[in-house]
Amino acid sequence: MVHTVANDVETTGQGDIRDISASVRQAVSDSGFSVGIATVAVVGSTAGITTIEYEPGAVADFNRLLEQLAPRDGVYQHHERWGDDNGSSHARAALIGPSLTVPFTHSTLQLGTWQQIVLVECDTRPRRRQVIVQIIGE
Amino acid sequence: MVHTVANDVETTGQGDIRDISASVRQAVSDSGFSVGIATVAVVGSTAGITTIEYEPGAVADFNRLLEQLAPRDGVYQHHERWGDDNGSSHARAALIGPSLTVPFTHSTLQLGTWQQIVLVECDTRPRRRQVIVQIIGE
Amino acid sequence: MVHTVANDVETTGQGDIRDISASVRQAVSDSGFSVGIATVAVVGSTAGITTIEYEPGAVADFNRLLEQLAPRDGVYQHHERWGDDNGSSHARAALIGPSLTVPFTHSTLQLGTWQQIVLVECDTRPRRRQVIVQIIGE
Repeated sequence: MVHTVANDVETTGQGDIRDISASVRQAVSDSGFSVGIATVAVVGSTAGITTIEYEPGAVADFNRLLEQLAPRDGVYQHHERWGDDNGSSHARAALIGPSLTVPFTHSTLQLGTWQQIVLVECDTRPRRRQVIVQIIGE
Repeated sequence: MVHTVANDVETTGQGDIRDISASVRQAVSDSGFSVGIATVAVVGSTAGITTIEYEPGAVADFNRLLEQLAPRDGVYQHHERWGDDNGSSHARAALIGPSLTVPFTHSTLQLGTWQQIVLVECDTRPRRRQVIVQIIGE
Repeated sequence: MVHTVANDVETTGQGDIRDISASVRQAVSDSGFSVGIATVAVVGSTAGITTIEYEPGAVADFNRLLEQLAPRDGVYQHHERWGDDNGSSHARAALIGPSLTVPFTHSTLQLGTWQQIVLVECDTRPRRRQVIVQIIGE
């Protein structure tokens, strides 16, 4: 009833948005379930999971929105307390959220043609991200 | 253990926020399960699912926030690349997220009295939206 | 297959962000399941659930972002219609979202060391919040 897959994704740092749809599709396929839900979660507090039309324009527009919301070079109490430089990363990631749940039927994720599941790297340095895909189904 | 319902919702375009709570409640009821979770997901990358107090004031306020975050008439790289006019739609939808998971117990969704599940249309034109309600329970 | 826990959390009002990770961990442990997902949901339309590094700096930065997005003392149609003063609360909560789903394996929530599950109080007055933790697993 539960099928777990963990994948590592290497990112280049803030603004790196990765299409991870193929690995989620593979996890659904490997589960052998025909109906259910796939919960996709990134471990850590400076990245998020959502969907977007994965083309460079829309990705750049979304990054610009995130920069406007929480500018990388802004003033953050997180910096003052810890000497870190990723206050913008925490604020962005908390807003996007670290996980997403997508239904599947007939062993097929219910996504639009122009809708991809993406890992949104918010941290200011390259990271190796662990993405958990937890499939619940039958 | 899994019960799937797919509903079509016709929207009038950006700013149309629809209360879909009744259809989710019906799906829970039809499942025959007493406890579990309902995952509500819209297919496509220019709409979102969340909850709000569904009264015209709060809905207008939320729309104003979305317009402030990603103005409809702003400059978007998505427009330049594809000749589309819905760059604001993609940015808004990615931030809201395309799905929501709500627990139910005693066959009842655990929502507040003034809390409705809503489809947030972000696209710039009317759309027929497919909303999947995937119930997992027993 | 389903294990439900409901907890009450008292908050002091807007800006009160509470680390509720321990209660979610306890719910996973009490379920007796080794693998699955935990859906954490707050009942009501003026609070949200997400994750953040739970240290005062990052929490203050996130609150500042929310205040910038939907200022407490801004003008809201929700106020004009209902005489309420919590229009900012509705807009913030709708954007954050009322629930979060986190996978667990080996009976352990898949969270980072510096990543806590938080209840984000957005309402303008103290509230007693009901948080539902719905565990699906085996």
